[in-house]
Amino acid sequence: MLDLAVKHLPVSPVRKMSEMLEKCGEKHKIITFGGGAPSLAPPKEALDFLSSEFKRDPHGASCYGSTKGMPRVRELVSELLKREEKISVDPDKEICLTEGGTEALFITFRTLLKYPDQIVLADPTYLAYYPQLNFLEDGVTHLPVYVQDDFQIDVNMLNESINDRTKAVLVLSPDNPTGRLLDKEVLRGIVELCEDKRLWLITDDIYKDMLYTGKFYNSRTFGGYDNTITCCSFSKSASMPGFRLGYVYGPADFIDKVAAIKSYISLCPSRPAQLCVEKYLEKKGKVRKKYLEKTVVPTYRKRRDKMVDCMERYLPKAEFSVPKGAFYMFPDMSRYLNKMDEETFANKLLEDEKVVVIPGKYFGEQGKKHLRLTFVSEPEDRIEEGFVRIANFLKENNL
Amino acid sequence: MLDLAVKHLPVSPVRKMSEMLEKCGEKHKIITFGGGAPSLAPPKEALDFLSSEFKRDPHGASCYGSTKGMPRVRELVSELLKREEKISVDPDKEICLTEGGTEALFITFRTLLKYPDQIVLADPTYLAYYPQLNFLEDGVTHLPVYVQDDFQIDVNMLNESINDRTKAVLVLSPDNPTGRLLDKEVLRGIVELCEDKRLWLITDDIYKDMLYTGKFYNSRTFGGYDNTITCCSFSKSASMPGFRLGYVYGPADFIDKVAAIKSYISLCPSRPAQLCVEKYLEKKGKVRKKYLEKTVVPTYRKRRDKMVDCMERYLPKAEFSVPKGAFYMFPDMSRYLNKMDEETFANKLLEDEKVVVIPGKYFGEQGKKHLRLTFVSEPEDRIEEGFVRIANFLKENNL
Repeated sequence: MLDLAVKHLPVSPVRKMSEMLEKCGEKHKIITFGGGAPSLAPPKEALDFLSSEFKRDPHGASCYGSTKGMPRVRELVSELLKREEKISVDPDKEICLTEGGTEALFITFRTLLKYPDQIVLADPTYLAYYPQLNFLEDGVTHLPVYVQDDFQIDVNMLNESINDRTKAVLVLSPDNPTGRLLDKEVLRGIVELCEDKRLWLITDDIYKDMLYTGKFYNSRTFGGYDNTITCCSFSKSASMPGFRLGYVYGPADFIDKVAAIKSYISLCPSRPAQLCVEKYLEKKGKVRKKYLEKTVVPTYRKRRDKMVDCMERYLPKAEFSVPKGAFYMFPDMSRYLNKMDEETFANKLLEDEKVVVIPGKYFGEQGKKHLRLTFVSEPEDRIEEGFVRIANFLKENNL
Repeated sequence: MLDLAVKHLPVSPVRKMSEMLEKCGEKHKIITFGGGAPSLAPPKEALDFLSSEFKRDPHGASCYGSTKGMPRVRELVSELLKREEKISVDPDKEICLTEGGTEALFITFRTLLKYPDQIVLADPTYLAYYPQLNFLEDGVTHLPVYVQDDFQIDVNMLNESINDRTKAVLVLSPDNPTGRLLDKEVLRGIVELCEDKRLWLITDDIYKDMLYTGKFYNSRTFGGYDNTITCCSFSKSASMPGFRLGYVYGPADFIDKVAAIKSYISLCPSRPAQLCVEKYLEKKGKVRKKYLEKTVVPTYRKRRDKMVDCMERYLPKAEFSVPKGAFYMFPDMSRYLNKMDEETFANKLLEDEKVVVIPGKYFGEQGKKHLRLTFVSEPEDRIEEGFVRIANFLKENNL
């Protein structure tokens, strides 16, 4: 084969697992605490509406649309932000719909950063930021956060981490993999620091609807309207990751560039996905509100409580923070691993016991000796079963 | 606002139009010969199947999947290529599904080319290649093609255009905007030249199913298995552009990189789109075959014939080539434009007569004084009405 213009390109272990699981014939035997893939179906009203649109106007439900997304859907997103987060976003100029949160983040990074710019990320944090930023040749400054502090960001340490190449700070709250919700005063401190230092603040709000304790604040509550970009997605909260719909909002000039880049990469967002979201958000988000309150939050809360309980009973020596939001736990497994590294542990656990967990090192240097376990994919009885298998694995391996 | 890492980013006039049309309240008054947006609905069987999957397994129809796409759908694409184009493509290693043809092209360019590499494009050709390549900082070598030659590529001229920065040649056949189908011997010559010069050959086969005269050949018929990449899409042939599903195939090492990059950009392809395509292609492509033979080709053939007829009656001084495939015409309007440039013409035509046409200059230097008109969007009576309006516009403006 002729030469390619790209060399080594790392792929997230969650993506590799996705491929593996999709080929796997005996899915039910595998218990997955792996990828953050909702096990719930999307709200029935949204799918029914889409099916009825396929009947009523099959062409209109399948056609191209504008790059930033249907004006009606952008308006509904703007109304949602007004209603729930008390912030004002112009649906025409300040919002662009995207192929999931992934595209929102990728284009945001591409638009804001250029080698040798640096971005500050908490460590540990979402594993897919690293290969995205690495591919774009952007530098990452790692800001350690600790289980003892419930993984809160230390604003003084953040301040010290900033150098003359720093151009942006990214915060994910509630967080993946730790489940940490940023404290109100910490968030205020980050906003003020970014304004003061003239840095872009990128907030990834994908888990804002999955909250078990505490309150979510949009960072703009504390300022930064002209230097804040927010990426979000319907994949997790509406349980529709396969539809690939997210959004990004920020200053109009920024969104202009995002839309241009989106037109090069993927032309326009999925029309069926937008129709589902139209139903999900219309009438003051009636469908959304009911779905979150009656289905999503209660389901995941029960699973979270079950997993916390299992952690205490089956892995009493693992240190962890009880997740306030999102759907992950990030136990420190040092006291169990002995000399085994956590990736070997994860691979062997899958092989021997058919339980999927994600090795902590992919989430950052601080993630070593940790595992990420999600409680989004399995019901309580299978969470228990998964921990029984993990306990068995520890015993079999004298860990 | 703080500085961005990107500067001027051109946006295709078709995209701008899309935004404009979507906001426009009186769509029916506008006759569009603009964007290549099918006016047909997708095959009913495909939409019905998707709706039934939403009922049968709402979670499974909405969930994440592997980056390269569902194994079953990749197999069906491979079978289609075997059956119709007599070529062998490994569904596991040599195919990646994408967010439409746009993502397939974007990632292909990113994977193969790097500044100061150059790629040879026919001029005129599809307008969206230019901003994509420009954004990626790849150089374009323009290879003029002429209406007198029915826009065929001259292989000797292609040979002469190659320099030591040239790394790839792209061919689009049937072509947008000219409707030209590459002659078998021309295609053979291009394949042999690329093999001989060790260049990547990228074939964009998006219009292969829309053929009115002649036969489509997969370029691999003539060799080049290890240096050819093909991008394609279901947007045009299955009339499902809003679903955003395309595919790219080529050597396994290339597809590996494509999948890695796709995981950074958009994670995985749309599941609902894949389910539609599963139905479209299963059982030896029964649904597809019927849809193309009974609906797509006859519908567009009639519209093509109508537009050719209108060209002759209303614009007798415009030189053009009768399209063999795709759904565009690209008349040379020099004899009508006088001193007006074609963009002023197009803008004024929209304003005065509510007819959308695309100025030729966006398709390349050779496109100046031309217009692109598509016959995919309007039925025959409205094509006639559009030409009546154009004739009226010429008269009103003494052109």
